[in-house]
Amino acid sequence: MNDIIRQLMNHRSIRKFTDEKLTADEVKVLIEAAQMAATSSYLQAYSIIGVTDGEKKKALREISGQAYVEENGHLFVFVADFYRHQLMSERLGEKIDDYLGATESFLVGTVDASLAAQNMAVAAESMGFGICYIGSLRNDMQQVIEILELPEHVYPLYGMVVGHPADKGSQKERLPFEHIYHENGYDSSDYQEEIAAYDAAIMAYYRERTDGKRADKWSEQVIGMLSQKTRLDVDDVVKKQGFLKQ
Amino acid sequence: MNDIIRQLMNHRSIRKFTDEKLTADEVKVLIEAAQMAATSSYLQAYSIIGVTDGEKKKALREISGQAYVEENGHLFVFVADFYRHQLMSERLGEKIDDYLGATESFLVGTVDASLAAQNMAVAAESMGFGICYIGSLRNDMQQVIEILELPEHVYPLYGMVVGHPADKGSQKERLPFEHIYHENGYDSSDYQEEIAAYDAAIMAYYRERTDGKRADKWSEQVIGMLSQKTRLDVDDVVKKQGFLKQ
Repeated sequence: MNDIIRQLMNHRSIRKFTDEKLTADEVKVLIEAAQMAATSSYLQAYSIIGVTDGEKKKALREISGQAYVEENGHLFVFVADFYRHQLMSERLGEKIDDYLGATESFLVGTVDASLAAQNMAVAAESMGFGICYIGSLRNDMQQVIEILELPEHVYPLYGMVVGHPADKGSQKERLPFEHIYHENGYDSSDYQEEIAAYDAAIMAYYRERTDGKRADKWSEQVIGMLSQKTRLDVDDVVKKQGFLKQ
Repeated sequence: MNDIIRQLMNHRSIRKFTDEKLTADEVKVLIEAAQMAATSSYLQAYSIIGVTDGEKKKALREISGQAYVEENGHLFVFVADFYRHQLMSERLGEKIDDYLGATESFLVGTVDASLAAQNMAVAAESMGFGICYIGSLRNDMQQVIEILELPEHVYPLYGMVVGHPADKGSQKERLPFEHIYHENGYDSSDYQEEIAAYDAAIMAYYRERTDGKRADKWSEQVIGMLSQKTRLDVDDVVKKQGFLKQ
């Protein structure tokens, strides 16, 4: 196992940081590393917003409900972005409305931003920083759009906090290799047994970490969450921004 | 600049490989590294299909139009996957239909798969392999679903070919840092000038690489592509798989 794979295997979310801020140079290295990820058909359909303004950070923290959205070394927000493509199409006098309204562009913007984000995560950890993705910004996507002044053809996906770690975090075991990886065709014949075994492993993990106070099964935790009617407004917001018109 | 950042900055797509196949151990390392990427709310909403069957690789190559989809060290296909969540919800007697049909789940599946994919790309390059993403599998998403026998609540995003490089590839310059990175709010006031300067740089790159035969501007290349009505069927296929019902 080489150093890079060792780092990837050692990933954990960090949710507590020292007061030290990232320097402008560190931010630039992270953005440039993010940009070198692959991009669909060279579209580069994303932007990254750094948030340093105290009022804006506070407002984003309220949407997320997490203190570390305000207290970190730097807060980035990843947005899928076809605004520049819209501008270029106007200048060139070519219509791209069918593409921008199609499901394909929503998929491509989400993929492009996410490949860039994960490159940033890897780069940040290689520099000794801890990171955490902030999906909870989607608790109120419309407000994030207003706070970050996002134009049409742009939507926010998630934040990423980066900083000098003030705790160690802890690593959560993933689904077994056999459950995620299929050869030549999708095969779910062992899914029930694999999930039951995984549930038992996760229950043991929580029990140990909380001195027996908590003993969640993965399946119950996950389904309990998905059965709640949350983030149903994402659809409206994304459509208002000009996507998913089909 | 540390070794990991140096590797990220050195990324290029590789489209020609030697005949040597990845070993089962190498495949396992890549999948396990992919799995350690962050996952939205611990959902792990993706699967990875390895394709080694000659007939299936040939069929996928025909969809893509690229020889390297057939000729490589290993072909992976990344799929967004809520099938296991659907199974668990049935077992637990809890309804998650609203979630599965919402735009949020389509976004989450696409993000989860893409963070995993980019971790795999980084891991593969650290082992000396070259990689290339294969978005062109979406030229016929329905046929990919049939070839890989994907059940409902699963859709294919893209492939990734991995192998021992047989050429060096070449690196394409990215948009300038200032164009991708915004502080505290989206600011497009310099976009036209930045794109014009970038167009000139990309034109020079193509001219040099092709002895003057090709001199595309980025904006014209990209908008020429987006103005074509392609992949409009992605919407139908994704809906048929149970997504985007809002």
